[in-house]
Amino acid sequence: MTAPLRLAVAGIGNNISALVQGIEYYKTLGNTSGDDLPGVKNPEVGGLRVTDIDVVAAFDIQPDKIGQELGKAILTPPNNYPRLAVSVDRYTARVQPGIRQENGRTVGEQEVAAALKAANAEVLLYSLPTGLQWAADAYARSALSAGVGLVNCTPETIARNDDFLAQFTAKGLALIGDDLASHLGSSIVHRNILSLLSERGITLQRSYQLNFGGNEDFKNLRQNSESKLSSKKNALAGVKTGAGLVEVIPSAGYVSQLGDRKVAVMNVTGLGWAGTEVTLDLTLKVQDSSNAAGVIIDLIRIAAAIQRAHHPGFSPAAVRLLKSPPRGHQTYAPQDVAAAQRTLQMVALA
Amino acid sequence: MTAPLRLAVAGIGNNISALVQGIEYYKTLGNTSGDDLPGVKNPEVGGLRVTDIDVVAAFDIQPDKIGQELGKAILTPPNNYPRLAVSVDRYTARVQPGIRQENGRTVGEQEVAAALKAANAEVLLYSLPTGLQWAADAYARSALSAGVGLVNCTPETIARNDDFLAQFTAKGLALIGDDLASHLGSSIVHRNILSLLSERGITLQRSYQLNFGGNEDFKNLRQNSESKLSSKKNALAGVKTGAGLVEVIPSAGYVSQLGDRKVAVMNVTGLGWAGTEVTLDLTLKVQDSSNAAGVIIDLIRIAAAIQRAHHPGFSPAAVRLLKSPPRGHQTYAPQDVAAAQRTLQMVALA
Amino acid sequence: MTAPLRLAVAGIGNNISALVQGIEYYKTLGNTSGDDLPGVKNPEVGGLRVTDIDVVAAFDIQPDKIGQELGKAILTPPNNYPRLAVSVDRYTARVQPGIRQENGRTVGEQEVAAALKAANAEVLLYSLPTGLQWAADAYARSALSAGVGLVNCTPETIARNDDFLAQFTAKGLALIGDDLASHLGSSIVHRNILSLLSERGITLQRSYQLNFGGNEDFKNLRQNSESKLSSKKNALAGVKTGAGLVEVIPSAGYVSQLGDRKVAVMNVTGLGWAGTEVTLDLTLKVQDSSNAAGVIIDLIRIAAAIQRAHHPGFSPAAVRLLKSPPRGHQTYAPQDVAAAQRTLQMVALA
Amino acid sequence: MTAPLRLAVAGIGNNISALVQGIEYYKTLGNTSGDDLPGVKNPEVGGLRVTDIDVVAAFDIQPDKIGQELGKAILTPPNNYPRLAVSVDRYTARVQPGIRQENGRTVGEQEVAAALKAANAEVLLYSLPTGLQWAADAYARSALSAGVGLVNCTPETIARNDDFLAQFTAKGLALIGDDLASHLGSSIVHRNILSLLSERGITLQRSYQLNFGGNEDFKNLRQNSESKLSSKKNALAGVKTGAGLVEVIPSAGYVSQLGDRKVAVMNVTGLGWAGTEVTLDLTLKVQDSSNAAGVIIDLIRIAAAIQRAHHPGFSPAAVRLLKSPPRGHQTYAPQDVAAAQRTLQMVALA
Repeated sequence: MTAPLRLAVAGIGNNISALVQGIEYYKTLGNTSGDDLPGVKNPEVGGLRVTDIDVVAAFDIQPDKIGQELGKAILTPPNNYPRLAVSVDRYTARVQPGIRQENGRTVGEQEVAAALKAANAEVLLYSLPTGLQWAADAYARSALSAGVGLVNCTPETIARNDDFLAQFTAKGLALIGDDLASHLGSSIVHRNILSLLSERGITLQRSYQLNFGGNEDFKNLRQNSESKLSSKKNALAGVKTGAGLVEVIPSAGYVSQLGDRKVAVMNVTGLGWAGTEVTLDLTLKVQDSSNAAGVIIDLIRIAAAIQRAHHPGFSPAAVRLLKSPPRGHQTYAPQDVAAAQRTLQMVALA
Repeated sequence: MTAPLRLAVAGIGNNISALVQGIEYYKTLGNTSGDDLPGVKNPEVGGLRVTDIDVVAAFDIQPDKIGQELGKAILTPPNNYPRLAVSVDRYTARVQPGIRQENGRTVGEQEVAAALKAANAEVLLYSLPTGLQWAADAYARSALSAGVGLVNCTPETIARNDDFLAQFTAKGLALIGDDLASHLGSSIVHRNILSLLSERGITLQRSYQLNFGGNEDFKNLRQNSESKLSSKKNALAGVKTGAGLVEVIPSAGYVSQLGDRKVAVMNVTGLGWAGTEVTLDLTLKVQDSSNAAGVIIDLIRIAAAIQRAHHPGFSPAAVRLLKSPPRGHQTYAPQDVAAAQRTLQMVALA
Repeated sequence: MTAPLRLAVAGIGNNISALVQGIEYYKTLGNTSGDDLPGVKNPEVGGLRVTDIDVVAAFDIQPDKIGQELGKAILTPPNNYPRLAVSVDRYTARVQPGIRQENGRTVGEQEVAAALKAANAEVLLYSLPTGLQWAADAYARSALSAGVGLVNCTPETIARNDDFLAQFTAKGLALIGDDLASHLGSSIVHRNILSLLSERGITLQRSYQLNFGGNEDFKNLRQNSESKLSSKKNALAGVKTGAGLVEVIPSAGYVSQLGDRKVAVMNVTGLGWAGTEVTLDLTLKVQDSSNAAGVIIDLIRIAAAIQRAHHPGFSPAAVRLLKSPPRGHQTYAPQDVAAAQRTLQMVALA
Repeated sequence: MTAPLRLAVAGIGNNISALVQGIEYYKTLGNTSGDDLPGVKNPEVGGLRVTDIDVVAAFDIQPDKIGQELGKAILTPPNNYPRLAVSVDRYTARVQPGIRQENGRTVGEQEVAAALKAANAEVLLYSLPTGLQWAADAYARSALSAGVGLVNCTPETIARNDDFLAQFTAKGLALIGDDLASHLGSSIVHRNILSLLSERGITLQRSYQLNFGGNEDFKNLRQNSESKLSSKKNALAGVKTGAGLVEVIPSAGYVSQLGDRKVAVMNVTGLGWAGTEVTLDLTLKVQDSSNAAGVIIDLIRIAAAIQRAHHPGFSPAAVRLLKSPPRGHQTYAPQDVAAAQRTLQMVALA
């Protein structure tokens, strides 16, 4: 039997709440080796089931999370992921102070490294709010120093940083990133529809996509930052969209009543035979942090698996699960992705 | 320069109106060899542009269409395809009486064969209302007898009839069918969304699709016939949908104000990570007969092209454009389809 | 304290399941005199709270319902109203054989009358499937003979039958009907939107409404009957819609996955200043039988209250809750409706 | 025959383009006295038809509009109201420099007053972008000084300024404002739906409304200003919504492809009988500036009519057409509004 993955988490937001509660949810379903776990694409990755995760260390800077047991911290506001009908009592690791800036200096890097070592962690999941490149860099150095692999959920540049990738690889560690693709998000649905039009010979005339929700991402309007928008646009790249025909509003508004749910509204207008109009209106509603956790669960298992198998660095098996893999999507040949997935016993994505 | 395709048409409904007006529409755009014709996937098929079509014979049984010039007959009610801003004066072929039943006997077969020969037609397009197997059979015999290829737009069994296929092939004629796929229809959009869910690991919980419109198909509720429903369901086959999770209402109602426009309403509900819900609501609005004509324009060119090239019978290049090709979709290997498309210089569908 | 209403019910379908489970639901909320019961417009009608209902007799003809306790019969398929988290154990009245036709003769009328008397019922709620005028007539005669008031939920003509109204009145009994308006249904929402357009000076160009769902009403397509359609159209009357501009499909399809839920899809297109287009697309999703029970709860209390107060016959207080009151909606002056509502201490509808 | 209204306009944006092109559009329809002008509620107000408008003076500060004929200026970017198939050649008044700020000082007030006098204008329409109180004040002083009535389309405080109201009244001039209600806008539709729920006894659980579009209002995100949001919320006041249950995003995003069209997305969730859920999803698409012009056409005619009839100041007939009338909506008794409307021969709004 495979030993559980020893996970450390940085940033105890909704994603971690979704991850932890979800793991316990799947335990309540009984046999988790089967093919039919709702919302799970890959029951096993590298021999690890979705339930084979132990969270051994946790970091955050929010005062009322620090010092709490992880099982309580994930339920502390502003976290607002739904409270599932599962017990999270077994998550007793206390949240430790994370890396922060004081008077312009980044502090806490050594302490985090020490804590990672003390907890004997295998993989660190970096899941802070978007936009803190200094924090991402510092956590990456802590992980390197502690001999722990890293998964970067954010658009910050870490796996795309050649130095970092070389150092993690040299030390036998995994480095998986950057930026989570959604399990099923507006970008992939939108791209899918636009591709279908193109494939069928319908000429795209114009299209828009608006996203809104009620969690901290939308409150901070961080999603509106240039980086978020350009990431969104990259996600639509490769589709013959015609320059400027597709407009995307990553964060159209904070609607508190939605809580951690997210709504995307899309319109696609095309021209068919004889220039007659085709329109497609689509509304997608998802649990935002489930959308993240459904991908995180694969990324952390990939990281642990390649590390255990002594194939350190980045794995092409993660390409489809990321918005910005090290060398961009186009550079990974489908057969290489498939080969990497087979090695990890993941069913290849079509 | 390639000689224009000499087309005969049986059943002067909205599809023919869309085809004829569309051809003239593309002429008004000027250069039609280019890549950027709105709503056209393949500018050339077998050297034939979408404007290289002459309609040399036309058949119908509606009294106020018979004897009229085709350019007028296509605009005669109940036809309600929009009147585009193009002249159709050059379509001067007079509509001749089609094959019909009198006192239980099928009559007109010889007359149609004679007319096809007299007009020196290359390909006959069979486009009668759904459900008239006897008529489809009779027109196929007329075509055979006149040495004319056949394209069957309807779910009637013609190209799937081994005898017919052998006879057309033996005579050096094309036989392309059965049942048009839509250029962009609710089946393909629905299948696309369901596939995406499956690919991403979202577990389908339930889904429905309803279609309504304002043309004769919806008035007659013919679409509700068992054959139509089963054809719809086949179009969703191959998707892991779980038995009975997907419900389809091919004709939910006749809404006259929609004219030849068709509306499809779809809902998809799935389970993501931790069993949390994902929903997708989609409304597709299309010009129904443009949806047909956008596929017909390729099928008739394929028929003429393979006939001219002495590769009679059925062509794998047509598989993606049909709901029910001779041996079912699964039997045509992607590389064979691609090879056939290359031969005809069609850009392969992804 | 007011004595509970002694109710008899004919037809143990989803409406009765919704009514019974709902009554128990409100009991679980504690104080039911307050203003803030979710989904309840009138906490008290004639001194009766929504929880002051005892079901003392029940009739049906479905073999596996007859003989069962009412609390079990309401949960028997094809009933598919959701099972709320309440106990219905106290509904111990056994379902008795209802009025039926055998060899063309209507039988059971006397037995029902005797049972009503034996149970000392005050009001009989007639809630059979639509279209059985003979059954509605027979139950009305049974009620008259037993000295019990009647509420007719269906489009069958009972309260609009002058003879019946005179007889119930003469005997000191209430007769409330015909045909339930929905608590919040597609007709009233559609009418509301159309009125708003007219009020603002937007010129209606065209509009449609389609309804679909997963309960027996939709399976039987009974809603498609002429009577249902004309009832729907009457519900839109009084709105300046322009002849033929509004199309309604009462039953667009049976979609089993929806269970007792009902979906209405509406489109409204109008012309504003300078003839520019205004469009409004609306989807309404309701629990179909809750929509009925939310109105039934008022109608039965009105019936009991006017009977107890010796104001037999029909009450204008019920006009807004019915699709077809005895003399049509136009004949009841707003002030008379308001006066009747005040008498019953109902808050007047705006 | 009534003499045409001599109108001056300040701010040559989409609203003026819609107004001017619309007036010409109605002329093309022929008889404009009739009841059936599309998108016109009141064919005549104070004897003035919608076509009885002469624009005699125009002011703006955009360099490429100044000096142009009005008929050209309305078509100058960033204006993007659609170009209707009408001639606007007769609008030959040249755009004059409007009131502006230079080095912190407001300049142009006297020149505008002189120009108004020279043009013999009756009514000045103030239609600058939202948020320029200093400009609104200055134009009001110019109008006063020139003896011209004023209509204020914006949320700036003018008609609610008691001093201004007293001065305009004393001089025999009309002062109509503040802030246009839309002809058919998201506020009134939303309020309508929320009222209907309340009226039917459905308990509101939560609701949101998002607006997006492609004209300058959305680009500037001015609509997001506190004043715009609070104005939006006031528009929903009077509806029993429960504190905080309704969230409104006035400007969710700038989507250039929409041009002058505006989209509002609304969701309403309520509880019906037994606490079961009712949901209503609604999408409203309007031509934004037509929505303004459809109200402006009545406001300017009211202003001219009361001025001509020597009933200066504010008219209750305008209350329903404004978001913020002088003393708030509640203070105008329905019968007073109706009386004022009758005086002006407007059909009373229901």
